[in-house]
Amino acid sequence: MKRYEQFADDIAELIRSGVLGPGQRLPSVRYASQTHRISPSTVFQAYYLLERRGLIRARPRSGYFVNAHTPRSFCEPQLEPALSESTEVDVSALVFSILESIKDPGTVPFGSAFPSPQLFPLQRLSRSLASASRAMDPRMVVTDLSPGNPQLRRQIALRYMVGGLMLPMEELLITNGALEALNLCVQAVTEPGDLVAIEAPAFYACLQILERLKLKAVEIPVHPREGMDLGALAQTLEKHPIKAVWCMTNFQNPIGASMPEAKKQALVELITRHQVPLIEDDVYAELYYAQQAPKPAKAFDTQGLVMHCGSFAKSLAPGYRVGWVAAGRFARKVERLKLMTSLCASMPAQAAIADYLQHGGYDRHLRKLRYALEGQQANMLAAITRYFPAQTRVSQPSGGYFMWLELPERVDALKLFQLALAQGISIAPGPIFSPSRRFDNCIRLNYGSPWGTSIENAMETLGRIIRSF
Amino acid sequence: MKRYEQFADDIAELIRSGVLGPGQRLPSVRYASQTHRISPSTVFQAYYLLERRGLIRARPRSGYFVNAHTPRSFCEPQLEPALSESTEVDVSALVFSILESIKDPGTVPFGSAFPSPQLFPLQRLSRSLASASRAMDPRMVVTDLSPGNPQLRRQIALRYMVGGLMLPMEELLITNGALEALNLCVQAVTEPGDLVAIEAPAFYACLQILERLKLKAVEIPVHPREGMDLGALAQTLEKHPIKAVWCMTNFQNPIGASMPEAKKQALVELITRHQVPLIEDDVYAELYYAQQAPKPAKAFDTQGLVMHCGSFAKSLAPGYRVGWVAAGRFARKVERLKLMTSLCASMPAQAAIADYLQHGGYDRHLRKLRYALEGQQANMLAAITRYFPAQTRVSQPSGGYFMWLELPERVDALKLFQLALAQGISIAPGPIFSPSRRFDNCIRLNYGSPWGTSIENAMETLGRIIRSF
Repeated sequence: MKRYEQFADDIAELIRSGVLGPGQRLPSVRYASQTHRISPSTVFQAYYLLERRGLIRARPRSGYFVNAHTPRSFCEPQLEPALSESTEVDVSALVFSILESIKDPGTVPFGSAFPSPQLFPLQRLSRSLASASRAMDPRMVVTDLSPGNPQLRRQIALRYMVGGLMLPMEELLITNGALEALNLCVQAVTEPGDLVAIEAPAFYACLQILERLKLKAVEIPVHPREGMDLGALAQTLEKHPIKAVWCMTNFQNPIGASMPEAKKQALVELITRHQVPLIEDDVYAELYYAQQAPKPAKAFDTQGLVMHCGSFAKSLAPGYRVGWVAAGRFARKVERLKLMTSLCASMPAQAAIADYLQHGGYDRHLRKLRYALEGQQANMLAAITRYFPAQTRVSQPSGGYFMWLELPERVDALKLFQLALAQGISIAPGPIFSPSRRFDNCIRLNYGSPWGTSIENAMETLGRIIRSF
Repeated sequence: MKRYEQFADDIAELIRSGVLGPGQRLPSVRYASQTHRISPSTVFQAYYLLERRGLIRARPRSGYFVNAHTPRSFCEPQLEPALSESTEVDVSALVFSILESIKDPGTVPFGSAFPSPQLFPLQRLSRSLASASRAMDPRMVVTDLSPGNPQLRRQIALRYMVGGLMLPMEELLITNGALEALNLCVQAVTEPGDLVAIEAPAFYACLQILERLKLKAVEIPVHPREGMDLGALAQTLEKHPIKAVWCMTNFQNPIGASMPEAKKQALVELITRHQVPLIEDDVYAELYYAQQAPKPAKAFDTQGLVMHCGSFAKSLAPGYRVGWVAAGRFARKVERLKLMTSLCASMPAQAAIADYLQHGGYDRHLRKLRYALEGQQANMLAAITRYFPAQTRVSQPSGGYFMWLELPERVDALKLFQLALAQGISIAPGPIFSPSRRFDNCIRLNYGSPWGTSIENAMETLGRIIRSF
């Protein structure tokens, strides 16, 4: 055995035994060469070998990291069959009772909708807030209402342009977070009683919006890797007078699926053929782990039918409540609804984010954030391997911070929620993601918090409870 | 003639000739005594005499000021007869076309909905924003959602307590401005197609909310001094299945009326008898010119039927979009609607205002603001005397910054709007304040800008256009 093979094996052993955890950085080539008294090229050869074996991976300008791949490979959650009937939406009471019970900051936040605020550059943002609000023209506060801060809208349009999507600034409207944007979009294209095609499972806020606006849902199954089932959607559009399709094309909440580009294009062609607007909830777009940002479905829209919603809440500034919408041919209607609903978004928050985008180093922050989330995913997968039943099926999203677990059928997610909460651990139980209360042996776990002993222990406890069913 | 009478007459002449304008401060007693070589007591006697004649008035700790009373006394606008039928609301297109045409900051803003931002302590607020956001606990941004920042809610509750109204903090919900609060209130107690009793004239945003939620309006006449006609309201409540009453009890927009306390109490008794919720839009509450703050109708509510909405947009921080609602027995429902609509208000803005209320000198700012607005009202009344036709009827509100004018019948307010806009002057024409498009010879003028040559000239131009009809 050559020296570099020996060295590679030593490291592989450290990984196998858990001394080097997933996401952890390997010693630099220089450091390893000095401490182990081997030449840098021997270290390089060892690292290449480990990389080929899939145990570690290189990140440009950052070094080598232990891979997410754990000894066990997981089965994906199964695709639910399509329901052909529409459903009255009445899920709010359940959602609220669950959201309220997990508000305690002492709870381990696997049920949370946000990543840990530790991952955000809040102090840097605060500086942007101070300087931007000092520089704010006083007249702005009475003349510069919706569509919103022009500098901010320009920065957002620029980011899309870099990603290959030309969004005219006039189409962009700033909102109080994406949640308001989505509310306005749905309201702009529906009347009470109308049908909306949604995902199964769907983000519970989508269900709440439908409920609030007295709309009915038709659930379209979501493939755990590739997103909404377009065959089922096509049938639904044939059969029902659908007024809008709601879809998260990237890192779908809760299941984590992302549509491949060709599928996004096919989706846009499908809704265009039926002339049904697509509400694209794309709030996790910036949290991709790959080298390249995924394109939104909006990029394939030629007729202004895609109402594309984004936000800074998940990638930069959760409490600022700054989101946006580019609503295509409905832009004017949405802007008017916005003016009637809440006039405009908070101006200091808009100005602060505009300033931060220009001077704060958003891309640098995002790179760090993506690495952190990817590493945390690896940690959580490893913990599932260690503590959860072997039949557990898991989605492995390529972005975001949610994992969808299909547990053995005997596990009742709502019961699990209660038992876990009693141990100070929150989870998001499957039934809150469906108007027909399906997914009762599924849960969504948030891995948006930096890994540590309390998180590891919580996973162990959770595994024990699950096994107790 | 005694020396003090002579001195009083000299000053009276200065007032009559306009050298001392309405709202202007008289020389201090000490200064006048020194410059005119008369004893302080002679100056005092002269000032007392002028005060008795109604020409000046004392303000505690500030000195004497020229009164708003101008030589001509105005007739009040006439009370419109009640309409017994309900009206579909379809006024938005008109409102938007008008609001958009007056967005140009070069326009003289008589049609604006805001006071001049020059009157707000924006730099001081900006300091509060910087220090509050630096001190913000990062966890807050993911755990401290609606009902909103506890410090801010405590400060608001404290201000109400000082005014004699005990609002439990748990009832207070922070919203994206009062506009969102009002939207949520209406939605919490109505279904599409329901009837809502509103004021005639009514704030156009009220009409837009009804239109957005597909509600019908029953218009109740508003007396220009004492507010909504309770006799007409009682009849309407008898005759129609009214689901909510919307009322601005203080400094009603657009007419400027304020209900006396006894009338507020009677209003609450009336709606309580019918068990119909009252949505109290009280956004101008802090802008009173009298010594004492007016009480809200909420102060007389014993059954939690009053949904009371307030805001900092008109008195402190227009662009921050921070308002609130105390929705009585509907508080929980409104909070849930808020969570479903936009999650929570922008956190830095909330924290900044909480900090400012504690350390910024809000009451000092409000005293200055009220004096400024009262003086500007006097200036505008004087200008109306000088330039407008003698038949002009004018409301003289005891707070706020809006004046309602009933012009001679031949004047078409929408036409006037166009002609004035061509001269760079905006006004708010009467028809945008009514779903039945009444008030077509009425206009609302905003006197929220510090008086100056351009404002004076604009009033002269406006008078000339009105006379040309």
